[in-house]
Amino acid sequence: MDLVAIGTVESPLTDRAAAPKQGDEGAPEAWLAFDERVADGLDGIAVGDELLVLTWFDRASRDVLRVHPRGDATRGEHGVFTTRSPDRPNPIGLHRVRVISIDGTRLRVADLEALDGTPIVDVKPVLGGIDER
Amino acid sequence: MDLVAIGTVESPLTDRAAAPKQGDEGAPEAWLAFDERVADGLDGIAVGDELLVLTWFDRASRDVLRVHPRGDATRGEHGVFTTRSPDRPNPIGLHRVRVISIDGTRLRVADLEALDGTPIVDVKPVLGGIDER
Repeated sequence: MDLVAIGTVESPLTDRAAAPKQGDEGAPEAWLAFDERVADGLDGIAVGDELLVLTWFDRASRDVLRVHPRGDATRGEHGVFTTRSPDRPNPIGLHRVRVISIDGTRLRVADLEALDGTPIVDVKPVLGGIDER
Repeated sequence: MDLVAIGTVESPLTDRAAAPKQGDEGAPEAWLAFDERVADGLDGIAVGDELLVLTWFDRASRDVLRVHPRGDATRGEHGVFTTRSPDRPNPIGLHRVRVISIDGTRLRVADLEALDGTPIVDVKPVLGGIDER
């Protein structure tokens, strides 16, 4: 099961320790720079859209099964699947973002906590019935 | 970027053409059968939890960039990233499910539209702030 990058995150965030844990916790604006070969797949995306962006946390550890939620050792250990920690067997990031502007195959988005250079692997629409109920 | 299966979907759904498009459209109950080696990662998951399950659509086509939404040719073509079609460059499925019962490393869930035998690659909690606003 081989993932291929379809683009890359361009963000002022370069330091994992300083990055917000979630996109609604002060994450900066970022660019989603997609490869030209997937341009047709972006057709129909518009400014104002809310999207789910899937990334590959290329700086994560994959052998982690138990974590301290939010890195806080006072909160005890939990199974990694009850957390959004980037360190997990398959380090796929799931980010809900809003499209601010579009420049060809580049989407400017708000609320993305992924680090600069993070590979993008998929984009999905937010579905009202499933994702917001 | 190599994904490893952490478990498998056990579902009465075996035919893609007959499967519902989304979990809230009449999908049956299913088992998430996790590998014993990731058991620690499940610690803390409880009956009643809402989870996001990430799967690998192993029967999908990866060279699709434009699709007819919901397979309906009368609705015109859209970029695949504006749809939840399983056919996409990285065929990762995103499913919101509810835990009905737990038997060791097996979770019985409602509202999963994935086919029997689909590899599971990740599980994440639903976050109120991000996923429900």
